[in-house]
Amino acid sequence: MSGVEEQTAGAGERRRSRGGAEARRAARTALKIEQFPYIVRKIPLVTVLDEEGLSIIERNADTILQEVGIEFRDEPEAVKLWQGAGADVKGTRIRFPRGLCRGIVQKTAPREYIQYARNPERNVRIGGDATVFAPVYGPPFIRSLDDGRRYATIEDFRNFVKLAYMSPAIHHSGGTVCEPVDLPVNKRHLDMVYSHIKYSDKPFMGSVTAPERAADTVELARILFGADFVAKNTVITSLINANSPMVWDGTMLGAMKVYARANQASITTPFILAGAMSPVTAAGTLAQVLAEVLSGAGTCQLYNPGAPVIFGVFASSISMQSGAPTFGTPEPTLVSIAAAQLARRLGIPFRTGGSLCASKIPDAQAAYESAQTLLPTLQCGTNFVLHGAGWLEGGLASGYEKFVMDADQLGMMQVLAKNIDLSENGQALDAIREVGPGTHFLGCSHTQANFETAFYRSSIADNNSFEQWEAEGAQDAAQRANKLWKRLLREYEAPPLDPAIDEALQAYIAKRKAASPDSNV
Amino acid sequence: MSGVEEQTAGAGERRRSRGGAEARRAARTALKIEQFPYIVRKIPLVTVLDEEGLSIIERNADTILQEVGIEFRDEPEAVKLWQGAGADVKGTRIRFPRGLCRGIVQKTAPREYIQYARNPERNVRIGGDATVFAPVYGPPFIRSLDDGRRYATIEDFRNFVKLAYMSPAIHHSGGTVCEPVDLPVNKRHLDMVYSHIKYSDKPFMGSVTAPERAADTVELARILFGADFVAKNTVITSLINANSPMVWDGTMLGAMKVYARANQASITTPFILAGAMSPVTAAGTLAQVLAEVLSGAGTCQLYNPGAPVIFGVFASSISMQSGAPTFGTPEPTLVSIAAAQLARRLGIPFRTGGSLCASKIPDAQAAYESAQTLLPTLQCGTNFVLHGAGWLEGGLASGYEKFVMDADQLGMMQVLAKNIDLSENGQALDAIREVGPGTHFLGCSHTQANFETAFYRSSIADNNSFEQWEAEGAQDAAQRANKLWKRLLREYEAPPLDPAIDEALQAYIAKRKAASPDSNV
Repeated sequence: MSGVEEQTAGAGERRRSRGGAEARRAARTALKIEQFPYIVRKIPLVTVLDEEGLSIIERNADTILQEVGIEFRDEPEAVKLWQGAGADVKGTRIRFPRGLCRGIVQKTAPREYIQYARNPERNVRIGGDATVFAPVYGPPFIRSLDDGRRYATIEDFRNFVKLAYMSPAIHHSGGTVCEPVDLPVNKRHLDMVYSHIKYSDKPFMGSVTAPERAADTVELARILFGADFVAKNTVITSLINANSPMVWDGTMLGAMKVYARANQASITTPFILAGAMSPVTAAGTLAQVLAEVLSGAGTCQLYNPGAPVIFGVFASSISMQSGAPTFGTPEPTLVSIAAAQLARRLGIPFRTGGSLCASKIPDAQAAYESAQTLLPTLQCGTNFVLHGAGWLEGGLASGYEKFVMDADQLGMMQVLAKNIDLSENGQALDAIREVGPGTHFLGCSHTQANFETAFYRSSIADNNSFEQWEAEGAQDAAQRANKLWKRLLREYEAPPLDPAIDEALQAYIAKRKAASPDSNV
Repeated sequence: MSGVEEQTAGAGERRRSRGGAEARRAARTALKIEQFPYIVRKIPLVTVLDEEGLSIIERNADTILQEVGIEFRDEPEAVKLWQGAGADVKGTRIRFPRGLCRGIVQKTAPREYIQYARNPERNVRIGGDATVFAPVYGPPFIRSLDDGRRYATIEDFRNFVKLAYMSPAIHHSGGTVCEPVDLPVNKRHLDMVYSHIKYSDKPFMGSVTAPERAADTVELARILFGADFVAKNTVITSLINANSPMVWDGTMLGAMKVYARANQASITTPFILAGAMSPVTAAGTLAQVLAEVLSGAGTCQLYNPGAPVIFGVFASSISMQSGAPTFGTPEPTLVSIAAAQLARRLGIPFRTGGSLCASKIPDAQAAYESAQTLLPTLQCGTNFVLHGAGWLEGGLASGYEKFVMDADQLGMMQVLAKNIDLSENGQALDAIREVGPGTHFLGCSHTQANFETAFYRSSIADNNSFEQWEAEGAQDAAQRANKLWKRLLREYEAPPLDPAIDEALQAYIAKRKAASPDSNV
């Protein structure tokens, strides 16, 4: 099974429509991309805590909410709503009677929801037994073998949207796939959202850097989907980070308020480097995370009961020597798996993990750390996986080579999640009877019948003999990945977009850009 | 938590015993190696099949044993023993009434056993909730950044034994850490076993390339431990591979017979590249694996009821394009996890996995593949993990850099297996009360109290800032690993060995070497 593979068959239609050797060569090597639907997990959930352990964490979260409380800064409306809901308010500090937040969340927040895409085949279900992969989010830099590390531009942004569009196991176009620092801060969100709409047909995320930018995102979605459709359906999922420990700030709350009231989804996410933003222990971190999520998701429900909200956690720890964040280490893995259990008990979708690493380059460190993050992310039942592909350097750089390497790993997760085929064909008893002892299965009829789909085919790994690998230049994985992402971008074709909608989107963007001077605040 | 780390404290004792700047520098940077005991897993077992799925596989294995049968080649005694036990024998083909093998194994094979080491602190428990990591086994080549790829020598062999000895999370010295091709085939086993005894104090594996070489291994163990001790205790665990599909050959059976009758442990292991040695499907592969293990482990119990025997499986699949083996892909992961479940139902210890990869070099491919193999290996409850460190190129090369990279990952698995600390200190409620919203935990008393042990400290990962990493030469993980293994070998000190025993070992080896001419057969 493989999404990205070379089409070695004749590709007759295409060949006839062009002429000459070049066209035949193009046809022979044309990329055939079969998109995968979002994952429906068939493997058992991986857990770490038992009932007693989970109860301890939940009890401690309630203690934090009750005794310590959470700061709600620069968002008086949220404070007022909590006062009305029965919380104890002192200035910006809100303390919550035990169980209050949980009750509010469980009363109205949906257990799962559909995020619609402009191509209905790319709609995703977020929650339950579904897993959705989205690309890296946030880096101001990019890295490639060609350019090394440099600031990201809107062209890079478009490139990563295109690569995500062409990656079969990336189900979601994501949000800030890199930060286009060549555009003014107060307007770049328009180009970012437009790029997701224009260059992909997968679902996307919205701007959260200011409430009015969230409002722009909703307006663009209304143009794309129709205002009626957006009023009734979720077409945007956005990332609302806590300012851990135990602070929600006005910018994020303001963006969440816009989205929630437009029926759009928010991922309330404590951003944790344990040891800095939370205690140095997993159990302490988990209690704080749960307290922050309960207060954030509860706020979402107060803004608009029933608006989709996700239990998010970004779990990392810091080097106790340097204070630098570390990734792919065991402690954050335990936090993520336990948090998934807490989210299921709360009854809302869950987000964590991805392909996280501290490495600056797509080397062995990057891959060990990413794999050690990604596999548990799938196994623990994460519903929405941000940073699925492209993350480097603790999130400071989006890597071109890393992106296609990770996308290959996501494809493997997609196969793993299917579990073992126990059909008669899967059991293959007749093949064993046919072949018998001391021979091999290479040519037997069962092998021939299952040839195409038997095993995942990596787009990056070199499995050839040492001699062949050496004859082909002794390349490492990053060098092969460099060829692959360039080829994907070369062969990219935009999904069709209704020209009238495209014009309307561009008109809105032009109007908004004209309304205020450029600013980098 | 870290086993290999630089000692930054004063190291007063050592400093006083030497003089001058060099001694102070040496003391300042001396390696402090704290060995970890074998893992006792505190995380829940990961599974893939339910009761019904497992029953299907077990039924199919019995069908294979009954209808197709297993070849027992060049070992008439095994055939005779099976005939006596009620099997249906036609020449070298043995067919087994349903349940016969299982009954024989379950009647006498131990659920777990202790393998004793010459240093009692290094004894390992194999089975149950214990996991033991051993290094790579078998490669004829080595790879390092310095030498590239070349044939392995006995010096390389000693080096890998030393590196395993100095790796805190490698609990077992292993066997053929590389194949010393500079020594004659018929005598190199003597130098290999001696190297494990001399340069490490961890438990080790025995020769299986001929019954008389297995006998030499037992003799050397008797010299080391005393004949009485060896008669009553297991001090050798050895790898007995099936010649899949469905063949046991005389060499491997002969070696197993020697070990079993000396009360030593065997790992009966179908060596599977699915699609070649087994069907292209996981369920088909599993049924065949179980049939092979049942017949092999059963043979072990017929040789000597009660001799320790491990359910082994080496699970890989092949590229359907080239026929080359692939690693770190989802299908073998599913096979390994399900096989662990089958082993638990059978009631004997389990071996699979390791840090397997197809990559020729310690690049991102190697790391993705190794991590995707290693984590499930731990999670599914594997008791004995061969190839835990150093494996490259589908097992054709032992990598120096790969070895220390993997050893670092094994350390992480050791921490992961501890699960979350739910003690009062782990819950850290007081830390959260002390710190409160909007500040940080860096200097709080709880963080200070847990500073040393809070997070796993990688010996390979660079978590520094981009600027610092660049200033230090912008090295990749392999370059840092190159420095680490050289440093370890430089600072290696042999564990003390009773000179009388050492002499006796050497005398036995000299006598055996003199007894026959060198031969490469």
